[in-house]
Amino acid sequence: MVVPRLIERKRDGGALSGDEWRELIAHYATGAVPDYQMAAMAMAVLFRGLTDEELAALTGAMLDSGERLPRSATGGRRIDKHSTGGVGDKTSLILAPLLAACGVAVPMMSGRGLGHTGGTLDKLESIPGFTTRMPLSEAVRQLDAIGVVMFGQTEEIVPADRRLYALRDVTGTVESIPLITASIMSKKLAEQLDGLVLDVKVGSGAFLPNIADARTLARTMVGVGERAGCRTVAILTAMDRPLGRTAGNAIEVVESIAAMRGEAAGDPMEVTLALGAEMLLLAGGATGRGEAVQILKSAIRSGAALERFREVIRWQGGDPEVVDHPERLPRAPEIREVRVGRSGRMPPLSPRVLGEMIVAMGGGRRMAADAVDPAVGLEILPRAGQSVAAGDVLAIVHARTPASADDAELTLRRALDHAWQEDAEPLPLLLERITHDHAAPYGDPAWEH
Amino acid sequence: MVVPRLIERKRDGGALSGDEWRELIAHYATGAVPDYQMAAMAMAVLFRGLTDEELAALTGAMLDSGERLPRSATGGRRIDKHSTGGVGDKTSLILAPLLAACGVAVPMMSGRGLGHTGGTLDKLESIPGFTTRMPLSEAVRQLDAIGVVMFGQTEEIVPADRRLYALRDVTGTVESIPLITASIMSKKLAEQLDGLVLDVKVGSGAFLPNIADARTLARTMVGVGERAGCRTVAILTAMDRPLGRTAGNAIEVVESIAAMRGEAAGDPMEVTLALGAEMLLLAGGATGRGEAVQILKSAIRSGAALERFREVIRWQGGDPEVVDHPERLPRAPEIREVRVGRSGRMPPLSPRVLGEMIVAMGGGRRMAADAVDPAVGLEILPRAGQSVAAGDVLAIVHARTPASADDAELTLRRALDHAWQEDAEPLPLLLERITHDHAAPYGDPAWEH
Repeated sequence: MVVPRLIERKRDGGALSGDEWRELIAHYATGAVPDYQMAAMAMAVLFRGLTDEELAALTGAMLDSGERLPRSATGGRRIDKHSTGGVGDKTSLILAPLLAACGVAVPMMSGRGLGHTGGTLDKLESIPGFTTRMPLSEAVRQLDAIGVVMFGQTEEIVPADRRLYALRDVTGTVESIPLITASIMSKKLAEQLDGLVLDVKVGSGAFLPNIADARTLARTMVGVGERAGCRTVAILTAMDRPLGRTAGNAIEVVESIAAMRGEAAGDPMEVTLALGAEMLLLAGGATGRGEAVQILKSAIRSGAALERFREVIRWQGGDPEVVDHPERLPRAPEIREVRVGRSGRMPPLSPRVLGEMIVAMGGGRRMAADAVDPAVGLEILPRAGQSVAAGDVLAIVHARTPASADDAELTLRRALDHAWQEDAEPLPLLLERITHDHAAPYGDPAWEH
Repeated sequence: MVVPRLIERKRDGGALSGDEWRELIAHYATGAVPDYQMAAMAMAVLFRGLTDEELAALTGAMLDSGERLPRSATGGRRIDKHSTGGVGDKTSLILAPLLAACGVAVPMMSGRGLGHTGGTLDKLESIPGFTTRMPLSEAVRQLDAIGVVMFGQTEEIVPADRRLYALRDVTGTVESIPLITASIMSKKLAEQLDGLVLDVKVGSGAFLPNIADARTLARTMVGVGERAGCRTVAILTAMDRPLGRTAGNAIEVVESIAAMRGEAAGDPMEVTLALGAEMLLLAGGATGRGEAVQILKSAIRSGAALERFREVIRWQGGDPEVVDHPERLPRAPEIREVRVGRSGRMPPLSPRVLGEMIVAMGGGRRMAADAVDPAVGLEILPRAGQSVAAGDVLAIVHARTPASADDAELTLRRALDHAWQEDAEPLPLLLERITHDHAAPYGDPAWEH
């Protein structure tokens, strides 16, 4: 293997063999192939793409650079969900205990917030004592015992991806659909899943805002999953405004607990139930979508979902009392109501602007090593499309200091003014459903059960 | 300056400002910008190109990373020639002393052979004792004294290019016309020239074989030179067969000495006089091309060119006796005649195949650090297009060992068979002449004096 010749071939529009990809990644993982060659290759891939065979080989090679979550001796089918990232997206927090309560094994390996998007691990760690760091052996033990574990990517999982992702981040090579796919899917396949549900965001706050790009990413990821023997379904969902009423860390845990209590409605439950139904169907726990939704709702009504969340917290060292006493979660000292200046129809507020505002307040990361303030965040009261009157509460800011609340208030007012000027129609919350042999608008009778 | 944002902008087809290029290269030269970011940027440039403004800024930034050859207190106008590289191309060896003998100051900073092409420094160093390594202060002292110095790129000259060139070589980013241009022109501009003549090769043995690519490279280099205040003319010349009768190191010095004695004719003299006339015209040493050629021929006839070469050798520590006794140059122990197998018209022999054959014999480099055998090489007797009869001598192989001569003989026979099958028409030796405001077939009356 002469690396410059491989780079030149990709650069000139050719393809590498599976063995070439495997050798390249294996040598990159050990450091024998230097970062500068991989950076040039990543840029060539960004321009030229990968064939299906190359993408499968690359994903497999990344997967093989590390260990896999051991198969369980017991338990139901193993299903996970992955989202491409958004603001206010707390569906993972609800889905993991909810599906476990329905007999599905959920090994939810999640990430941290970076850029304007939040991360499941940061949200969970706002629960006092909660840890997301554990070896794979412990993760599988918990999974076998209570059917769900919510943990971070360990050192053993796909080390080639950790190295490549860090490199792409500083070399302008993040926005490549095949490289994104290999990164996500190698980690998900390391969980040794029976099925995977992908929530691919669309709209200004999404990683790939354009629906055509999101669709390509969804199809590509579904193709790689199915090819590796993991049943994979993608749903395109709206990220032209934050999902749900809250955005932050502890504040999203509060909303998630309310949802598991059956007290939440609207956006987040609609997305949660759509994704959860797909997970349950992949697990064979229901024969149709309507039945699946009923099973999920029962598990909420009965308290089983909430009880399972309590168990997760207990297993992972957190204070399970927060489930009944959310006031035990960190709370910001500065609570500020921001009111609407004039009447009208609530437009979609930019998730990017609000997400970056939360980062500025300390609730997210500028650099991977940054600490996160669990208490700060934002409640937004009216939903996009709803009528609001001058003097209505637009949002409640949870800030560390009065100055930070001032900044947030200003940012919110500007975001609202800008959105009113833009006057965009909110996207449908659930846009499309994509499987290996079908792609249709969400709810299309052709696939609807 | 946030480097990933600059890479992304270039990747997406945008342009960097002059200040951004200057800052990027300055930081790359110090190591503050790492190789992996520059590798990604180089690949993005390869796909997207550079605007004229960007290319001028990049070239200037590379130039500014090092020192320049000090301006002379005395001497005529300073003119150099640069070739994009070929096999058997000894025109530099003849032109430098010849033009100095005509009153032009020639600070000829040359390179070494790499790949299948030969290098002027390697050829000169086949002269016993000859050194091409010297500090800039010494180079300018010799230039002032005898009007010519033939030396290698020093540590002080364009260090950013040395680092970038080594990086491009291992990251599949060599074949970018703007990056090639910035690399060549930054080094030539560091000589603080009044004028520059470019010999851009065309044909299978050229770095860019295609005439359209060669023309683009020529135009791009002429543009950068003129923009930087250096009068620049390019001539496209044939490299579909080796230039002249010899290819190797010492053996090319022998042919060059014969040329300076007025004993050589044909290909190499035709190219030498064409390039030399352009140099003399740029120096203001003639008013027309015919006059320029007459002045050059007189300097050969009078012995002035050869005498100047003798002075160069003396100044640079070599044995000047080789000029009168070429047998003092290293000579290979194994001399083998190879005869033509059948009659026909001599086709153009692949310079790439013959150049690689010479590398295999030890006369060139596989790696930059390889030592070079000065004695080995090849004489090819019939010129392309000429009639040959079965039994005529095709070539004389100069090899280190009988086994090496066997290999060379086999390669030669195959190259001839292959060329006979291809039956290609040799390219015209002088194809086009390109200036900042004119491009025309060589010899076109529109520019011919």
